[in-house]
Amino acid sequence: MTTAKCLHSCCCRLTLSILLLLVALTAATPNGYPREICQYRKGKPIQPTSVYRNHLIAIREQMLIRATLEGPEIYGYILPSTDEHLNEEVATRDQRLRYLSGYTGNRAFAAITQQGAALWVEHRFAQQADGELDCDWQIYLSNGNVSIADWLATQLHFNKRIGADPHLVPHHLWLRWERELAAKPLKLVPINSNLVDMIWEGERPAPPRENVIQVQTRDFAGEKWEDKVIELRRQLNKLNCEAMIVTSLTEIAYLLNIRGTDIPYTPVVKSYAIVSLTDIFFYVDHTKINLSIDLHLRTDCYNENCVKIKEYNQVWSDIRTYVQIWKRVLVPAPCVQEQGASEAIYSYVPQKNVFEHISPIIFMRAQKNFAEQEGMRMAHIRDGAALCEAMSNLESRFYTEQWTEEKIKYEIELWRLSHANAKGLSLRTVVAYGEHSALPYYISSNVTNIEVSDQSLLVIESGGQYLEGTTDVSRTFIFGEPTRDMKRAYTAVLAGILHISDLRFPASVKPAGVDSVVRAKVWHELSDYPQATGHGIGAYGSVEEPPISVAYGQNNNFLFKQGYFFSSESGFYKRNDFGVRIKNVLEVLDTDKTTTSGEHFLAFQSVTLVPYEPKLIDGSMLSSDEKRMLNKYNAKIRKQVGDELKKLGSMKAFYWMMNKTRHIREYLPEDEYRAAMGGGVDRLQLNYFYILTLSLLSCTLFIWSA
Amino acid sequence: MTTAKCLHSCCCRLTLSILLLLVALTAATPNGYPREICQYRKGKPIQPTSVYRNHLIAIREQMLIRATLEGPEIYGYILPSTDEHLNEEVATRDQRLRYLSGYTGNRAFAAITQQGAALWVEHRFAQQADGELDCDWQIYLSNGNVSIADWLATQLHFNKRIGADPHLVPHHLWLRWERELAAKPLKLVPINSNLVDMIWEGERPAPPRENVIQVQTRDFAGEKWEDKVIELRRQLNKLNCEAMIVTSLTEIAYLLNIRGTDIPYTPVVKSYAIVSLTDIFFYVDHTKINLSIDLHLRTDCYNENCVKIKEYNQVWSDIRTYVQIWKRVLVPAPCVQEQGASEAIYSYVPQKNVFEHISPIIFMRAQKNFAEQEGMRMAHIRDGAALCEAMSNLESRFYTEQWTEEKIKYEIELWRLSHANAKGLSLRTVVAYGEHSALPYYISSNVTNIEVSDQSLLVIESGGQYLEGTTDVSRTFIFGEPTRDMKRAYTAVLAGILHISDLRFPASVKPAGVDSVVRAKVWHELSDYPQATGHGIGAYGSVEEPPISVAYGQNNNFLFKQGYFFSSESGFYKRNDFGVRIKNVLEVLDTDKTTTSGEHFLAFQSVTLVPYEPKLIDGSMLSSDEKRMLNKYNAKIRKQVGDELKKLGSMKAFYWMMNKTRHIREYLPEDEYRAAMGGGVDRLQLNYFYILTLSLLSCTLFIWSA
Repeated sequence: MTTAKCLHSCCCRLTLSILLLLVALTAATPNGYPREICQYRKGKPIQPTSVYRNHLIAIREQMLIRATLEGPEIYGYILPSTDEHLNEEVATRDQRLRYLSGYTGNRAFAAITQQGAALWVEHRFAQQADGELDCDWQIYLSNGNVSIADWLATQLHFNKRIGADPHLVPHHLWLRWERELAAKPLKLVPINSNLVDMIWEGERPAPPRENVIQVQTRDFAGEKWEDKVIELRRQLNKLNCEAMIVTSLTEIAYLLNIRGTDIPYTPVVKSYAIVSLTDIFFYVDHTKINLSIDLHLRTDCYNENCVKIKEYNQVWSDIRTYVQIWKRVLVPAPCVQEQGASEAIYSYVPQKNVFEHISPIIFMRAQKNFAEQEGMRMAHIRDGAALCEAMSNLESRFYTEQWTEEKIKYEIELWRLSHANAKGLSLRTVVAYGEHSALPYYISSNVTNIEVSDQSLLVIESGGQYLEGTTDVSRTFIFGEPTRDMKRAYTAVLAGILHISDLRFPASVKPAGVDSVVRAKVWHELSDYPQATGHGIGAYGSVEEPPISVAYGQNNNFLFKQGYFFSSESGFYKRNDFGVRIKNVLEVLDTDKTTTSGEHFLAFQSVTLVPYEPKLIDGSMLSSDEKRMLNKYNAKIRKQVGDELKKLGSMKAFYWMMNKTRHIREYLPEDEYRAAMGGGVDRLQLNYFYILTLSLLSCTLFIWSA
Repeated sequence: MTTAKCLHSCCCRLTLSILLLLVALTAATPNGYPREICQYRKGKPIQPTSVYRNHLIAIREQMLIRATLEGPEIYGYILPSTDEHLNEEVATRDQRLRYLSGYTGNRAFAAITQQGAALWVEHRFAQQADGELDCDWQIYLSNGNVSIADWLATQLHFNKRIGADPHLVPHHLWLRWERELAAKPLKLVPINSNLVDMIWEGERPAPPRENVIQVQTRDFAGEKWEDKVIELRRQLNKLNCEAMIVTSLTEIAYLLNIRGTDIPYTPVVKSYAIVSLTDIFFYVDHTKINLSIDLHLRTDCYNENCVKIKEYNQVWSDIRTYVQIWKRVLVPAPCVQEQGASEAIYSYVPQKNVFEHISPIIFMRAQKNFAEQEGMRMAHIRDGAALCEAMSNLESRFYTEQWTEEKIKYEIELWRLSHANAKGLSLRTVVAYGEHSALPYYISSNVTNIEVSDQSLLVIESGGQYLEGTTDVSRTFIFGEPTRDMKRAYTAVLAGILHISDLRFPASVKPAGVDSVVRAKVWHELSDYPQATGHGIGAYGSVEEPPISVAYGQNNNFLFKQGYFFSSESGFYKRNDFGVRIKNVLEVLDTDKTTTSGEHFLAFQSVTLVPYEPKLIDGSMLSSDEKRMLNKYNAKIRKQVGDELKKLGSMKAFYWMMNKTRHIREYLPEDEYRAAMGGGVDRLQLNYFYILTLSLLSCTLFIWSA
């Protein structure tokens, strides 16, 4: 062998080994969210053990036992945080992911193999997950560059079977997973009995059984459920469908005028419903039914306007039976925030009978009737009063006690729940102080709790469920003195809210098209916020309701209609420093004026009535028009929330509110204007000065001559 | 027969005859645009004859003769106003519709049967068509409720053949016609030799043959055509295509850096081009080629960077030949304002080889390079100067002469064309006075011409072609004193233009999403305008260029990019009274700032530099911010157009311009503010009054004591 040849062969080998190393590296488990504590513990001889490690061992056993029960064993298992109705916030009994891993947040997916376990969470939950999960778990971001399929591919060999419970996965997502896994190639298989349920068994909380269903009376619902069913059938007829499987709990609650306490934040009953042209089936735990429900749902008769109540689990056999008769069954498709039906529902209806379509109930519900509109307005007055009470109380005690985010959260929730007709919260209360307020999606928890002082901004996002309606509001406060930057940011955000509340527009303008009205002033400061500006909201229902979504990036074409309610939330985030967030609920009004082509002009109106923080408003940044809008809004709060507070006898809150909503001068005096513009001598004031000097001079002259 | 039976049978017969009558009525020719003159003439014994009746007779003969030439006779014939390249404005030689009917507008379709003839025009051309067409013709509105297929169905029996020239019809429209006619049922057949050409023959104007192609030099084009071809080939490679058939004249002009005079308003050469990975074919009338073009296009060499010039009509046989070799050929699909390739092109390429896709040239061209950007700005300075000259001249002569819309149009065009580097107009000049200005799409013509006085608003929409770029501008003027309504309308429209010129936004905001920024103030007056707010514009090219379209109703997702130029036109129309229209061309700038997610913030800047009408601005409706934007814009006009006017020695225009662009007071004094708000005592002024009185009083007291 010559030297040259040897060199060549050496080079080859080196290249080969580098290549092999590279391949090995890329095949290794990809890096996820960095877990400092686990890095620290890595070298230590003794590792803390937790109950969750046992759960992980148990579920891995179950994955292998599948061999004897539902076919061959599975090598990977995917578990979402949702329940059978694809809710994000679920009952304790359905918190399978929490039982398995200890993670208490939502919007997460876990994947487990024999060697590994990983959790996919949204960015806002990452810190919380890091604090709650033990070091057996890796953490990945939902919109990061490692998907569940990618991770499983690094863990498993080709063609292995991956299991998931089709009841917990929306059909569209199931199809995506199937496609992504097939590319690896791995195989997704449905496992009908949930593996967590099998290891949970004895410890699992029992379902609530008593007094969980309430009738939503005509006073609040505004419409009989029978009329809603007639309308739904009319729509089904138009779509040429014989039946519809209603899987969304909020849709069932709306359709049948019932409310419940089965899941947190949303007043619904865990159930299915099937509405055909001749029958109404309601699948629910029988123990939850009492006489008043029987009477309300007319379960004693046998025509097409009487509800037949059946056991919750019977829905599956019924679908199998009835699809023999029905030729075309409407199965809900996803619609904006709504996930549509689960893979399980789809798999029970033969492909040829499925008519995948957005639920018509979504559009019936979105357009609130007169009683619901009145109710929403009333709920927001009550809610405004509750927040005034909470905030006035907080402000008066601020310097005498020590406050943390969690303590403020507790106070806010307490005040809100103490109100008449208050039935609960409508979302996880967010209290974010200082640099936490600069995180667009921050969710406060024990793990992230910090002290609140008077140095920075405090963002509070919260909402309540009232018999009359649902509320959703964000406000930003400061207890000390704001900096110029904070005022600028707050005023830019406020201007957006003022502009959208004052907007009039032709009915064919898409929600995405009004987003720039809210954002323009924030953009002008070369800032933007990542979340959607707005979404629909229910009337004593879900705080996030389709079909409205105000976000410039989205493409859907569902238009605003008179009677719709939606939220508008804008923000300004200065990383590691402070954040501003303001959210109001608005209603859509018809101006009764039309364009030349006959299209109606719609308008918006704020129904949220909670004062803004005057300390944070930079008057020189607002035009007279904008200040006029602000004064109009404040006058409405003084009138409506003021009356409510007086009725409640909460005079402390009343004076707090009156102080925060004082009329501000719409006209900017010239000296302030010039100061805001950066100085320069005041021409007009000089004129007055001249007159004054002149008159004094003439006086003096007169005296002199005298 | 009993009486009852008789009655029954009578009833039956009556019902039957009513039904028959109804059927007959519905089958009768539907009513179109009401033609008063024809109604009037109907009863008269002697009808005026015109040359156009003979053309109609001749073409009907041709429809029957088809039997011997291209298969069986056709019973209906559809003729569009476009040419082979689907241009709206076409050369005299291609004004087939005008030859046939006498109609001189555009965007029209004619349908002819043996018994009838009808023309479909847009609303804005209806009055003109009514004046120009004789009573053999019916007129329908393009977006009315009678389609061409509907009309033909009332004229013809089932399954009759309808002919059309596939060279003049875009592929997508051909498919739609085919579908609509098939539903009647009628059959659309392609007739390759145009019937109008056959009857026109001797009288038809010859094509222009000399000096019609000019080279667009590097100074203006900014890029060598060779580099553009390399980029196009890179794009074709990416799309996996071997060749592209370029059918759009503006795309050919851009790609090869040539300009021409073949059609009005757009500086292009009637030609086809085919760019494959190895060849560039340019199909054009050989007599138009001279030495400089040969040198420019490098016709003397034989590699892939040399153009092979072929005869215009050879494109058809070449397509037939080359598709044997090319497996995948890009055939242009429609894109916003661009119609895509004609049905003829599609029919020449076998279905399996067609790759229907938006032309990549559209996106290359939209992003202007540095030289083009500079050119566009320069063209707008020249154009601003020309308009200042025209308007100052008009204003000084206004009360000494009699003016009509057409006379003003002539003056405007004259001044614009007298400028250095001015190569022509970029669109039909619109001069609309009084109630004509209230018509959103009014096109002035001899038929509609009216006198212009000082009582109402005058809208002028016009644009020029300069070697450096293309301009497009609308302004609204008044020679007398405006009413309060006019000022309100003008100021609302102006505010929209000021706001969009000042907008900053993340790059992923769709053009449709910024429309509400322009329209918000107009909407607030409960008014809207029907046209799109904006469209892209070429650099010495077409005045309406894809892919940008700013209109809240449209769905396309083409985003703004740095270097794009587009127009923003908003309006306010008070029916039968007055209208306001303001249009500027804006350029898209990159702010070099990014959002937290790394997206760039873009901004707009007006390149149009023509003064607004200060008499029409209601200062109390604008905020200080808005006035600041206006002053900034006016300062730019004074500087840039001022310099140009001084260079030209047009001092009259210079002073006119200086007068129109005077700095306005950004700050609104309190008394004016209160007056605009509807009165009320002025608090601040009272304070000064107190001081004055007090000082005088103290003086008097002092004197008294002295």
